[in-house]
Amino acid sequence: VRIDGTPHRTIELLDGHVRVLDQTVLPHQVQWRTLNTLDDACAAIADMWVRGAPLIGVTAAFGVALGLRADPSDAQLAHACERLLATRPTAINLAWALARTRTLLEGVAPPARAAAALVFAVQMADEDVLINRAMGICGLQLLSALAQKKGTVLNILTHCNAGWLATVDRGTATAPIYAARDAYIDLHVWVDETRPRNQGASLTAWELGQEQVPHTLIVDNAGGLLMQQGKVDVVLVGTDRTTANGDVCNKIGTYLKALAAFDNGVPFYVAAPRSSIDRSLDDYRAIPIEERSHREVTHVQGRAVSGALESVQIAPSGTAVANPGFDITPARLVTGLITERGVIVPSRAAIAAIF
Amino acid sequence: VRIDGTPHRTIELLDGHVRVLDQTVLPHQVQWRTLNTLDDACAAIADMWVRGAPLIGVTAAFGVALGLRADPSDAQLAHACERLLATRPTAINLAWALARTRTLLEGVAPPARAAAALVFAVQMADEDVLINRAMGICGLQLLSALAQKKGTVLNILTHCNAGWLATVDRGTATAPIYAARDAYIDLHVWVDETRPRNQGASLTAWELGQEQVPHTLIVDNAGGLLMQQGKVDVVLVGTDRTTANGDVCNKIGTYLKALAAFDNGVPFYVAAPRSSIDRSLDDYRAIPIEERSHREVTHVQGRAVSGALESVQIAPSGTAVANPGFDITPARLVTGLITERGVIVPSRAAIAAIF
Repeated sequence: VRIDGTPHRTIELLDGHVRVLDQTVLPHQVQWRTLNTLDDACAAIADMWVRGAPLIGVTAAFGVALGLRADPSDAQLAHACERLLATRPTAINLAWALARTRTLLEGVAPPARAAAALVFAVQMADEDVLINRAMGICGLQLLSALAQKKGTVLNILTHCNAGWLATVDRGTATAPIYAARDAYIDLHVWVDETRPRNQGASLTAWELGQEQVPHTLIVDNAGGLLMQQGKVDVVLVGTDRTTANGDVCNKIGTYLKALAAFDNGVPFYVAAPRSSIDRSLDDYRAIPIEERSHREVTHVQGRAVSGALESVQIAPSGTAVANPGFDITPARLVTGLITERGVIVPSRAAIAAIF
Repeated sequence: VRIDGTPHRTIELLDGHVRVLDQTVLPHQVQWRTLNTLDDACAAIADMWVRGAPLIGVTAAFGVALGLRADPSDAQLAHACERLLATRPTAINLAWALARTRTLLEGVAPPARAAAALVFAVQMADEDVLINRAMGICGLQLLSALAQKKGTVLNILTHCNAGWLATVDRGTATAPIYAARDAYIDLHVWVDETRPRNQGASLTAWELGQEQVPHTLIVDNAGGLLMQQGKVDVVLVGTDRTTANGDVCNKIGTYLKALAAFDNGVPFYVAAPRSSIDRSLDDYRAIPIEERSHREVTHVQGRAVSGALESVQIAPSGTAVANPGFDITPARLVTGLITERGVIVPSRAAIAAIF
């Protein structure tokens, strides 16, 4: 993440310490937190100091390394992986990163495990950046063609934060946007605020601002009208898990935008690194949908007039709440998947072909 | 509005004073405000102490009466109507109520105008209640049939507040809900919070709570998933303006719910009193869409830990914002219009037949 002009990653190894940017206090405060233990890593994921499928995976890999520092035994390795896996149920990257880490470390003698785990976590972070850069290049061709066809500023709508802040660097859905900006393509991004946690308002708007990409914040309800009015040229989102047939599980509300895009002939693309594709699931029906805290709906956090971060209650006390975190965009509504191996149609055959 | 068990209307004439329930501080405070002047009435509408198409219309009629107290001249009548008309551009009821009031008063000699205007405003309030009761009865048949077919609790999803608080009493979209509750139909309401002003979280949840109707608050993003999961049996919303062909202009985000309902085979009904139907417009293209304050998006009001009402900022300072207040649900996505003359299909012929 470039912060006030200086490049940063969202998770960094600094003098042997793992530190992460605390995303719960953005955009109001830039606060780094050091992770020293397995507990710290679990808290970082569960309490969403870090979020976004790719970043969660990398943080988990660092978490295993931290968990093995004092006790590199097989039992502790298993325990660390189980604890980390339980922090968030929907994102496939978490399970994928932990499975890779565990398999690798089981082949390493316990005394060498902590060091090997750290090296592997760093490699995984580097790999994430390379993958995102590759997705950026594939997506750039797409945006470039759309921009050329339009001949004037290209309007992109995005939901939630599949940005820099959801990854180690560059982002998934934002990678093509940053690549297009770097290629001098004239573009503008509609940013869905993304209730209930407002990742669009607090994270995407902030990172696009830091990168000086022109953008406009809207409520999640507004995207349909903007498409009806011809003000959206392409929708670009991320995914927490995509199934073998191309069904896309992503932040709650994504499906509504896909329906509106379809209804208005607006192309709908999903940035889906291969790590987010779960080929073990035939279609969406087996994806667990995380139910999150009711307080995310009844209370909103922001900066009060005093400058302090405060939560205000917006619903009557005692109101019943449902808060599912994700929904499913069926493959039939998806124009294409932007992967690090190219842009593909969301079909079983095309997905199989990139593995 | 029944408040702590005592029935109230949202606008009341008390000892010659007009008073309205200030909806900007609900659900945290129950605060009545007295309107003494035309300025007060304009502020009540523009600042949304009162909102909802029917209630705006009735408040405007009272506003004309207040404006004529000191000066009942033709010039003042014209001035009052123009000022009130300018407060909110989208709702047709405002124009309709003012046109009726003006036509009637132009036929009254100036000395008698203020009294006549007050009598007419009271009549219009009573008429609103009767219309809503009639819509409730028509909608009840519909909900009753759906409940019978389902055999268990009927799940209704609603967007924004087309309730008691949007009218003088009973509500438009809520009228069938209250009628069904009175008829002992087992029902449950999903309440969209309705960003940016959160009328669902702050008003609909509050009034359903006061009336002890079972309900669950959700973010606007969640309705699509709930429909995918079969947890919504019918969608019921209001309208600010419906055109001669049945296109429905309503609170921003309504269109997205209509798309999801259509995609999942869920019936989508609009409570549309004849006063909300603008037969002068052939279709949606001529409806002005109100652009509202950017602060509604960047700041959220609620109750702080201290108990005081506070606004917190959720976006980075200086973020550009777009805040359209309404969108269009094309007639093709609407199952039926619930009017005071019966439930009709949203077609030009069926609409013409109820006038």
